[in-house]
Amino acid sequence: MNKHNYVAILAGGLGTRFWPKSRASFPKQFLDILGTGETLIQSAYKRYASFILPENIYIITSEEYIGLVKQQLPQLSPDNILAEPSRKNTAPCVAYIAFKLFEKDPEAALVIAPSDHLVIDLNIFKTLSLHALEFAKKHNAFVTLGIKPTYPNTGYGYIQYDLNSLQDENVYEVKTFTEKPDLKLAQTFLESGDFLWNAGIFIWMAKDVIAAFEQFQPEMHELFLAEKDNFNRPEEKKALARIYPLCVSISIDYAIMEKTENVYVIPADFGWSDLGTWNSAYTNLEKDEKGNAITGEHVIAFDVTNTMVSSHDDKLLVLQGLEDFIVVDTKDVLLICKKDKEQQVKEFLSEVKKKKGDRYL
Amino acid sequence: MNKHNYVAILAGGLGTRFWPKSRASFPKQFLDILGTGETLIQSAYKRYASFILPENIYIITSEEYIGLVKQQLPQLSPDNILAEPSRKNTAPCVAYIAFKLFEKDPEAALVIAPSDHLVIDLNIFKTLSLHALEFAKKHNAFVTLGIKPTYPNTGYGYIQYDLNSLQDENVYEVKTFTEKPDLKLAQTFLESGDFLWNAGIFIWMAKDVIAAFEQFQPEMHELFLAEKDNFNRPEEKKALARIYPLCVSISIDYAIMEKTENVYVIPADFGWSDLGTWNSAYTNLEKDEKGNAITGEHVIAFDVTNTMVSSHDDKLLVLQGLEDFIVVDTKDVLLICKKDKEQQVKEFLSEVKKKKGDRYL
Repeated sequence: MNKHNYVAILAGGLGTRFWPKSRASFPKQFLDILGTGETLIQSAYKRYASFILPENIYIITSEEYIGLVKQQLPQLSPDNILAEPSRKNTAPCVAYIAFKLFEKDPEAALVIAPSDHLVIDLNIFKTLSLHALEFAKKHNAFVTLGIKPTYPNTGYGYIQYDLNSLQDENVYEVKTFTEKPDLKLAQTFLESGDFLWNAGIFIWMAKDVIAAFEQFQPEMHELFLAEKDNFNRPEEKKALARIYPLCVSISIDYAIMEKTENVYVIPADFGWSDLGTWNSAYTNLEKDEKGNAITGEHVIAFDVTNTMVSSHDDKLLVLQGLEDFIVVDTKDVLLICKKDKEQQVKEFLSEVKKKKGDRYL
Repeated sequence: MNKHNYVAILAGGLGTRFWPKSRASFPKQFLDILGTGETLIQSAYKRYASFILPENIYIITSEEYIGLVKQQLPQLSPDNILAEPSRKNTAPCVAYIAFKLFEKDPEAALVIAPSDHLVIDLNIFKTLSLHALEFAKKHNAFVTLGIKPTYPNTGYGYIQYDLNSLQDENVYEVKTFTEKPDLKLAQTFLESGDFLWNAGIFIWMAKDVIAAFEQFQPEMHELFLAEKDNFNRPEEKKALARIYPLCVSISIDYAIMEKTENVYVIPADFGWSDLGTWNSAYTNLEKDEKGNAITGEHVIAFDVTNTMVSSHDDKLLVLQGLEDFIVVDTKDVLLICKKDKEQQVKEFLSEVKKKKGDRYL
């Protein structure tokens, strides 16, 4: 394995759309959403451990989840578990890991990766990731993996690419990054054939990221640069505590990717889902002959079809007459909603917060 | 209050159709099904205490529920809480209380009453019950209160009465007792105007009941007669342990009421439900503007209509898109079913028993 290749797995998210299974104190990445026997962060770790040296795998999370990461990934050195002092979207996080790695390895190339997505074909994933790392190093390029869309999803960002720009084997120039489209636009994207789903996977050299921050986010660059000698030393935590309050909260897409030149995408087809919602979990779970995806040992169903059921511990669920529903039962919260209304989970949550405070979040 | 008037409240039932709220170890009569602040047996006690002396109120249950009765009716003397050694339907139970009361008071007149029904107008109920007691004593009659039917219920037995037989003010001769009809027959009953619902409330003198047993159930009469000197004495429990295993399991309707002459019914209109099923609880619960009957403090509903919801303790229920459902959540069981399928609860239960044993019953 190439000792200059690194991955930073981002594991600070709240996974609110997976409420009530995902909680502020125990979010989605630490759950075995698909009943595979592994939590999502464990799967993510394994995915990268097949082509990146263990000492080059970093988890970036927040202070409160450090314990969960240590528990679920005991093989990881404590030095490789990083905590952001506060939530500032993805740009400060990327700057942090880029400065940190560059300080110890000026030739560092890294993958920025979500901790809570599903990847099915690990071989294709590995091949494309390594290909992206080599391409990024060779061309000082910003590379992203774009997922070939299979339906007009309105919950994803899209990447438009130039089909005529084949730079290297299966690597294309990016024309634009788009926000989540409405259904009509998503359909147009799908039909056009030159849009891919943005999977939030970015590959680049640490030095190129730093240069891009210098050019497009000079204030943030200045903050990190001033503290660069404190990284990889006992002072690192204090340095972050000084930097973060002064950083703007901004996504890496918006801060760098949409502004910089030399951005490429590799269309990927390894079976992917962001597992962003219960419906996407349903899509990726094994279904019985009636189209039900049931996790939990004690579920008895009569006339139930196309329904996603998640129970807990020894709780018995006896269900009759449900069609196209999501039923998620946890110790202190039961959620029942129509499958096509699951985008409303955030609305449910704000109503819960309004009526009950933080108790059930 | 007349010192010869007694009531025996039957509280040995399992309330299985109210599963999963009602459990073998804590059945329906001990639950506050309607959220009134009183359990059903507490309401039943109160209903009779308004016209029967406290020392003349008996509860007949099984050994395992003695503790629950004492807890919920602490005002009751332990001597007035009777336990049957085994479940043998209603006839042996009626013979037992009749022999017991006759032994201490040959002029005893008694009401046999369920512990788990709803009665709304307590004044009408009291008036009709006292009227029935007087009529029974005066004519050595077997009297029952029949509920004027409001819709073709297929879960009740019906009583056909002779509209031209006015014996006394509002007391009619019974023509037949019927089993639960199918829907078509129930509709015919309703249209005919001479059928009433059998509420399981019987009024008679102890001595007349004993005479009827002698005539129609001579074997059972013999069993109780042989032990009569042991009733109301320390030997009573042992006597019952000898009698019960030899008794056939048979209902009082079938054993006596359908066979004897001199059977009368008082059409009653005091607002009644047997609360036999979740649907009947729904019918009798207060509904919000969307037709939902919700018990539980922590239920948040979006687009939910005509649905019955029962939650427990501090559990939060967030519900969306349910129409005409029953949702009952308990600590270890969640039941969701269409309101018109609630007669299937027994079927659900047998499936649960088959797959999980007695654990959730």
